Amino acid sequence: MTTVFNDPTQFAQEMLSGFCRLHADTVQPVTGGCVRATETPEGKVAVVIGGGSGHYPAFAGWVGPGMADGAVVGNVFASPSAQQVHAVAKAAQRGGGVFLSYGNYAGDVLNFNLAQERLNAEGIPTRTVVVADDITSASAEERHKRRGTTGDLVVFKIAGAAAEAGYDLDGVVEVAQRANDATYSFAVAFAGCTLPGDPDPLFTVPKGRMGVGMGVHGEPGIAEEDVLPAADLARMLVEKVLTERPDGARRAAVLVNGLGGTKYEEMFVLWNDIAPLLEDAGVEIVAPEVGELITSLDMAGVSLTLFWLDEELERLWVAPAQTPAFRRGSAITTTRRDPAAIEDATAVTYPEATTESQASARALLAIGQRVAAALHEHETELGKLDSIAGDGDHGRGMTNGADAALKALTEAVEAGAGAASALAAAGDAWGDRAGGTSGALWGAGLRAAAGALADDSAVTGAQVRTAVRAALEHILSYGKAERGDKTLLDALIPFTEALEQDESELAQAWAAAAQVATTEADATADLTPRIGRARPLAERSIGHPDPGAISLALVMRTAAR
Amino acid sequence: MTTVFNDPTQFAQEMLSGFCRLHADTVQPVTGGCVRATETPEGKVAVVIGGGSGHYPAFAGWVGPGMADGAVVGNVFASPSAQQVHAVAKAAQRGGGVFLSYGNYAGDVLNFNLAQERLNAEGIPTRTVVVADDITSASAEERHKRRGTTGDLVVFKIAGAAAEAGYDLDGVVEVAQRANDATYSFAVAFAGCTLPGDPDPLFTVPKGRMGVGMGVHGEPGIAEEDVLPAADLARMLVEKVLTERPDGARRAAVLVNGLGGTKYEEMFVLWNDIAPLLEDAGVEIVAPEVGELITSLDMAGVSLTLFWLDEELERLWVAPAQTPAFRRGSAITTTRRDPAAIEDATAVTYPEATTESQASARALLAIGQRVAAALHEHETELGKLDSIAGDGDHGRGMTNGADAALKALTEAVEAGAGAASALAAAGDAWGDRAGGTSGALWGAGLRAAAGALADDSAVTGAQVRTAVRAALEHILSYGKAERGDKTLLDALIPFTEALEQDESELAQAWAAAAQVATTEADATADLTPRIGRARPLAERSIGHPDPGAISLALVMRTAAR
Repeated sequence: MTTVFNDPTQFAQEMLSGFCRLHADTVQPVTGGCVRATETPEGKVAVVIGGGSGHYPAFAGWVGPGMADGAVVGNVFASPSAQQVHAVAKAAQRGGGVFLSYGNYAGDVLNFNLAQERLNAEGIPTRTVVVADDITSASAEERHKRRGTTGDLVVFKIAGAAAEAGYDLDGVVEVAQRANDATYSFAVAFAGCTLPGDPDPLFTVPKGRMGVGMGVHGEPGIAEEDVLPAADLARMLVEKVLTERPDGARRAAVLVNGLGGTKYEEMFVLWNDIAPLLEDAGVEIVAPEVGELITSLDMAGVSLTLFWLDEELERLWVAPAQTPAFRRGSAITTTRRDPAAIEDATAVTYPEATTESQASARALLAIGQRVAAALHEHETELGKLDSIAGDGDHGRGMTNGADAALKALTEAVEAGAGAASALAAAGDAWGDRAGGTSGALWGAGLRAAAGALADDSAVTGAQVRTAVRAALEHILSYGKAERGDKTLLDALIPFTEALEQDESELAQAWAAAAQVATTEADATADLTPRIGRARPLAERSIGHPDPGAISLALVMRTAAR
Repeated sequence: MTTVFNDPTQFAQEMLSGFCRLHADTVQPVTGGCVRATETPEGKVAVVIGGGSGHYPAFAGWVGPGMADGAVVGNVFASPSAQQVHAVAKAAQRGGGVFLSYGNYAGDVLNFNLAQERLNAEGIPTRTVVVADDITSASAEERHKRRGTTGDLVVFKIAGAAAEAGYDLDGVVEVAQRANDATYSFAVAFAGCTLPGDPDPLFTVPKGRMGVGMGVHGEPGIAEEDVLPAADLARMLVEKVLTERPDGARRAAVLVNGLGGTKYEEMFVLWNDIAPLLEDAGVEIVAPEVGELITSLDMAGVSLTLFWLDEELERLWVAPAQTPAFRRGSAITTTRRDPAAIEDATAVTYPEATTESQASARALLAIGQRVAAALHEHETELGKLDSIAGDGDHGRGMTNGADAALKALTEAVEAGAGAASALAAAGDAWGDRAGGTSGALWGAGLRAAAGALADDSAVTGAQVRTAVRAALEHILSYGKAERGDKTLLDALIPFTEALEQDESELAQAWAAAAQVATTEADATADLTPRIGRARPLAERSIGHPDPGAISLALVMRTAAR
């Protein structure tokens, strides 16, 4: 909903004032809207666009070199008056006539036409192209009755570039009309918007449903359906817009518009599905635009627009533009980097290893297999334990980490890696895939442990003891916790100490230390955790053992077998 | 809420893929995120930024010349892993070392630190500045504990410009740390956001309330209050951020950030209130940024950031940048136009008039006064009539129009205008202020009527008859309605015909025609209107007269008195 406003009746005026204040180098306010603050040549056709407010960047966001000379700014979702159109056109015109353009809505048609008549009567040659691109709003036979939506940006950009290039008024009209006739849009809406000061939305779409073909002011569409996954939505949009593909049309500018409540992340996901579908259909995509192009306040929804190009339209589409909300061209000259020159840090090569160390790596792999299996067996139990005071993802995090480590170990062993390199790869993979603080610490610990091993000799009991100590110290240095804080340290510290103090054969000492860790992990149930900003729900864990300590003990016991 | 997605666990990856596909000239995907697709000089410090997804344009939107060399892209609201950071840094680095920067959150600190340690161990000099600008999240004494919010953009821009200018790693760290220390943000939140696939919002703010100091992931703030009008909100934000104004600080970059659900229109309204408050406090605003800078999906809220400048910081802040979401500099060179050279179409000058015509203008003024008074008297009644099948604003539209026309008539008469000019001015004013189709048609009709009068002679009965006919014909040419469609034409057509056919003295003929119009207006209650897309609720009007016809008859009767 619209939340930030003062007097709702002054919303559009204050919006325009703030916008012009912000972009004072580019635009300046005039009666009825705004015009460029920069010099334009005498005799240039003035491109004047406009409509109701609430659709930013439409329309004021597109005033500047390469696009519009002026924008007429009506109240929210209401046509500007003929007097506003007239005033902006008078302020914008430079003796080359005025080109008016706007989306096809009855109020805008009436007021812009009244203004055009008056401008012509005053000796200022004025012509108009009305944007009509929404294919659901009228049939192909009556396309002049279609609503104007994202096609606005197409037609304004083409007209703006043509006027900047020195086209005369008739020339601008001709090419802009051709652009309009080559533009096809299809929209879906997920939720309505709330106007400043209104208690209720202007219109609604039921949750989980979408208005297919719905207009940007809530104009009825052609159907209401369940919301689709992005891939299916992409297919629907592409199929609909391609139904009117002109014969032989091949190259197209493509626009995906978000209405305000549908965010850039979602539009990029959608684009990831749309682009291949268009390419499969033989469409060559030219200078696409994906973003909030014509919004309706916080309304949620997206649309797809295809603008079929010929040589002239393509040249005008990619021409430079410099407006507050739409820019083409760069102040910085760049050259393309050879993609092959970019280092791939994940391409692993292992140092040469002795057969003894390779045998130790195979032993680590066997341990990794047992650990992964044991964690899968206990995943649900660990998740439940974590959900008492956390987000319940500890079991999933541990299996993700162990699975990734196992995969890395397998690849390392197959590639002939030694014990140190294999364990380092396992640690990296665990840290990368497990997620969360716990996953990062497990990865860091395993990687530190690997530093105590070697690729040119078998692993010794002394190395393992050093490795476990190294892992503990590394975790302590990053984890910001101490023994007694009810974390995995409450199992890892006693495990490390028990292993170091037990001078018997490694397997026996490890098994004994794992039992110590298990006892201490269970005893965390009696600990009262530190409760703070980072662990606001930790008091819920009182009486329950810590899932991180429990899983660490489980891993150690499993490794011992 | 997040609506467009496929598998929620793949959301961040598909988002990144779609983003890189869209901006293939600028960025290319690598393991863990993306890097520039363009050449950068050997030996340049690589600026690597990152964090969780869901904050676009942070962070991938800022990769490109003048800003970042690479962005690490974690899952939604989750830190990227140390392995991701390491991989992106390796792909981005050009032999000049790596500068890491990110917002101050525990998971990011852990993973970026682990990566930094590994990069340094591998012989790639790596240093970090952690962004900490949110003044509510820790005291000034513990500012290193503050969360990073819009300050990200500040620090990344400064570091990016410094690296581009050839600063070495220590130099980039020094200036970026100085930028961080000079940056202060304060936020309010109006509504939470919903993650892909989640049934419920991640957190909520009660409707009509705002979380003061709330973080971008819903971290608790310092208070919850009723939403304020924009002017009061601006005052709160400015006062809070100025509490930590450094001694002597004068020039500042100013940033207003919208979290995703708060739209550009609202931010411009807010800026319209913020900018004067800062100026009053002696702040010189340099290159401000108002928009969606660091979002949280569709979360609603805004923040204010002040970045206090010295000469070096200002130079770096305004330096060119060319990224998908942040650009400085232009491909088009512009010069400022003299604002005084822009024609003000609303500055009215009246042609010279004879005293006879001036007397007629005064008579029109007297009529205008009576009409405005009568419309105010009947405003509520007209509104009620309109609310049966419309939006109930007809009474308000008519009084707005009549008041504006009266003001224009008064000014015209005071300026010595003749009857034709005075009536034209009245028509323009009516059309400009009344709103809606009816207002535009009233304005157009009055303006057309003015064309039948003169400034050099008194108004004659014949002129009035011609004027009324001209108004009718003009309205018919624009209104797309016919007699019987239940519009004002059902009163205006019989009025015009009656006036034309009655050859008696004007006042008498007018009064009689007004009676005809009244009878016909009342009779519109018996008409069944055309019901279509433009008038979907028109059937509700059956049995009730048309408000447009009723108000026209009222105006005509009032004019006759």
